[in-house]
Amino acid sequence: MDANADPTREESSADTVGGGVYRLPAGTSLSLDSGARLEGLEIAYQTYGVLNADRSNAVLVCHALTGDQYAAGVHPASGKPGWWSRLIGPCLPVDPARHFIIASNVLGGCTGSSGPSSIDLSTGQPWGLTFPVITIADMVRAQALLLDHLGVGTLFCVIGGSMGGMQALQWAADYPERLFSAVIVASAARHSAQNIAFNEVGRQAIMADPDWRGGDYGARADRGDSQPDRRKGPEKGLAVARMAAHITYLSEAALQRKFGRELQRDGVSWGFDADFQVESYLRHQGSTFVDRFDANSYLYITRALDYFDLAQAHGGVLARAFTRAREVRFCVLSFTSDWLYPTAESRNIVRALNAAGCRAGFVEIESDKGHDAFLLDEPVMREALAGFIGAAATARGLK
Amino acid sequence: MDANADPTREESSADTVGGGVYRLPAGTSLSLDSGARLEGLEIAYQTYGVLNADRSNAVLVCHALTGDQYAAGVHPASGKPGWWSRLIGPCLPVDPARHFIIASNVLGGCTGSSGPSSIDLSTGQPWGLTFPVITIADMVRAQALLLDHLGVGTLFCVIGGSMGGMQALQWAADYPERLFSAVIVASAARHSAQNIAFNEVGRQAIMADPDWRGGDYGARADRGDSQPDRRKGPEKGLAVARMAAHITYLSEAALQRKFGRELQRDGVSWGFDADFQVESYLRHQGSTFVDRFDANSYLYITRALDYFDLAQAHGGVLARAFTRAREVRFCVLSFTSDWLYPTAESRNIVRALNAAGCRAGFVEIESDKGHDAFLLDEPVMREALAGFIGAAATARGLK
Repeated sequence: MDANADPTREESSADTVGGGVYRLPAGTSLSLDSGARLEGLEIAYQTYGVLNADRSNAVLVCHALTGDQYAAGVHPASGKPGWWSRLIGPCLPVDPARHFIIASNVLGGCTGSSGPSSIDLSTGQPWGLTFPVITIADMVRAQALLLDHLGVGTLFCVIGGSMGGMQALQWAADYPERLFSAVIVASAARHSAQNIAFNEVGRQAIMADPDWRGGDYGARADRGDSQPDRRKGPEKGLAVARMAAHITYLSEAALQRKFGRELQRDGVSWGFDADFQVESYLRHQGSTFVDRFDANSYLYITRALDYFDLAQAHGGVLARAFTRAREVRFCVLSFTSDWLYPTAESRNIVRALNAAGCRAGFVEIESDKGHDAFLLDEPVMREALAGFIGAAATARGLK
Repeated sequence: MDANADPTREESSADTVGGGVYRLPAGTSLSLDSGARLEGLEIAYQTYGVLNADRSNAVLVCHALTGDQYAAGVHPASGKPGWWSRLIGPCLPVDPARHFIIASNVLGGCTGSSGPSSIDLSTGQPWGLTFPVITIADMVRAQALLLDHLGVGTLFCVIGGSMGGMQALQWAADYPERLFSAVIVASAARHSAQNIAFNEVGRQAIMADPDWRGGDYGARADRGDSQPDRRKGPEKGLAVARMAAHITYLSEAALQRKFGRELQRDGVSWGFDADFQVESYLRHQGSTFVDRFDANSYLYITRALDYFDLAQAHGGVLARAFTRAREVRFCVLSFTSDWLYPTAESRNIVRALNAAGCRAGFVEIESDKGHDAFLLDEPVMREALAGFIGAAATARGLK
């Protein structure tokens, strides 16, 4: 931990937003599951709140596939609230007045952490597909280095939804001694065949786009002139990937309730414009996504998701992943209409936690909003988290 | 009906496969829902069996999105059994020894019927996107003209699965006086928001492919030389569309049972090759599809599906679509794991049939095979159809 990063300073709540980019010291590297070693690792992070004197109130918030480190407050680029600002903020379950909250962009991401769009210092060009393939465990390793840097030995809580929940599970498997509690929302301990299939459709859509150029779109065009612009990326392919994925984030009931067969205009176009509101909505989801996300990062992070199978490294028995985590308090939440990571996946996690002798609370929340419910206004989720985190705080001796 | 088409000839069962292309006589045209009129209509069809003397044993078999007129026997291009050869054949529910079976390629299709890849006689070039947008009702109108040509006044049965079931429903709404019975398998009376959303992903994947060229890929290249080859179509986009759609044809359970997380090789590639068997399977589905299907036809037929809403033309009340169909016997079948057209959609149809005073049998078949179950070996489906069609034959006085 360096002095500049000391988060135990006393400040008023309004001044306690921090963050930056942590760079792994020169000469050191991150060992990856693939066997590769990554030098020059950078982890972009945000913090909210202040680390207390005994360093016992740190909460690590882990983001999903297309999330970022701006979990709370206001996003600097979009001006919109952070992606989990319904759960993180004053008087919310995770509260900067009580917790030192850390959120980092995952390894492989595109909002500041090392990923395929970062510059490979050995070439001066973006890594592209020469970036090493990474796993959920690699993301967690990078987060652990960030915590070391921030002087956080033990997390009061690691919490995440969707892919963030997978990181929380991986924390419990790999660093149980650094965890007091863990919250896993709308997640799974492994990617199912259907999950892999949808991710593969997205990857194929990106790689089918000629502007993808084998992943080299980020490199400066080698045209002999001084053209400084980066090449155009595979925007159309990435938009199609996002559209397909977005359907899996919503339930059929939610799509029907929100859009049904409502038209954009009076009558249909008798053509291939967006006649139905749901078409227009999906196109909008696709076209706005390409402004904020890197196509190669999408490939790498979906690959990490597909490779995720926590039981596999433990002889195929999920419970064995948690045998060292008996002191950790777990809370698992799922949503009835989530068909991306259905309740059965959460029950599978809870069964394994019980078999391992861990204490695990589980709530299946009634919602018709599908997988995206974890990002939306779900009072039962908020109350369940407030209850779990409050009880854990008491046990931890936090005020 | 012309003399050459007379299907009442007495022949042995082995010699009773017929078919060809019916061309609408010059000077006549097909009126479409869009208001356009289509001249030069061609309908490619196959027949199996012989029309009996009182012309009472005709069965019209309607195909799904990517099907064709080769419902039984052996497909001339692939050498594989016809797509519904599990239900159509000797001693099967639809039997060429007892029925005169007609299957035609839908309007807008790409295996011989008029569609966007057909030649527009006024230009000598493929229609491409100048082909008029068509509906399920337009497909049924074209089928009715084919039946006129074949001398079939009344159908003993119209039967179809998926989009074929929609055509059967449209027949009941538009030509109830020409129907004795109707079978609707794994279908719906309207496309849901989720159905439209998945189709839109497929269309966007095709239209994002630069080889689509605004739909003009079928035209001969205008290069000033005598290059006779057609331009390459949007193969990558069409493959992605097929991959996304294919996931919706299978259940999560079927994907997990067939593929799970099984790898192609020992260990993962740490790259973006097809590591998992489910990826390889999906890629294969995509790459083989482009050899047999036209991308513009995919656009037009998915559009017809999305526009389908049988209640809409009847004041929003589905039962009213069937008020003239009280004499028709209906059989509705669904599969428990079909999430493309779930059982709730079939129940909706049955409720409307009951409300209209029609006789309707309904069976929900237990299967984990998803939507594609209607094309697979499902003994309960076969037995239900044998029972329904046998009873209808008795009532109709067929031997």
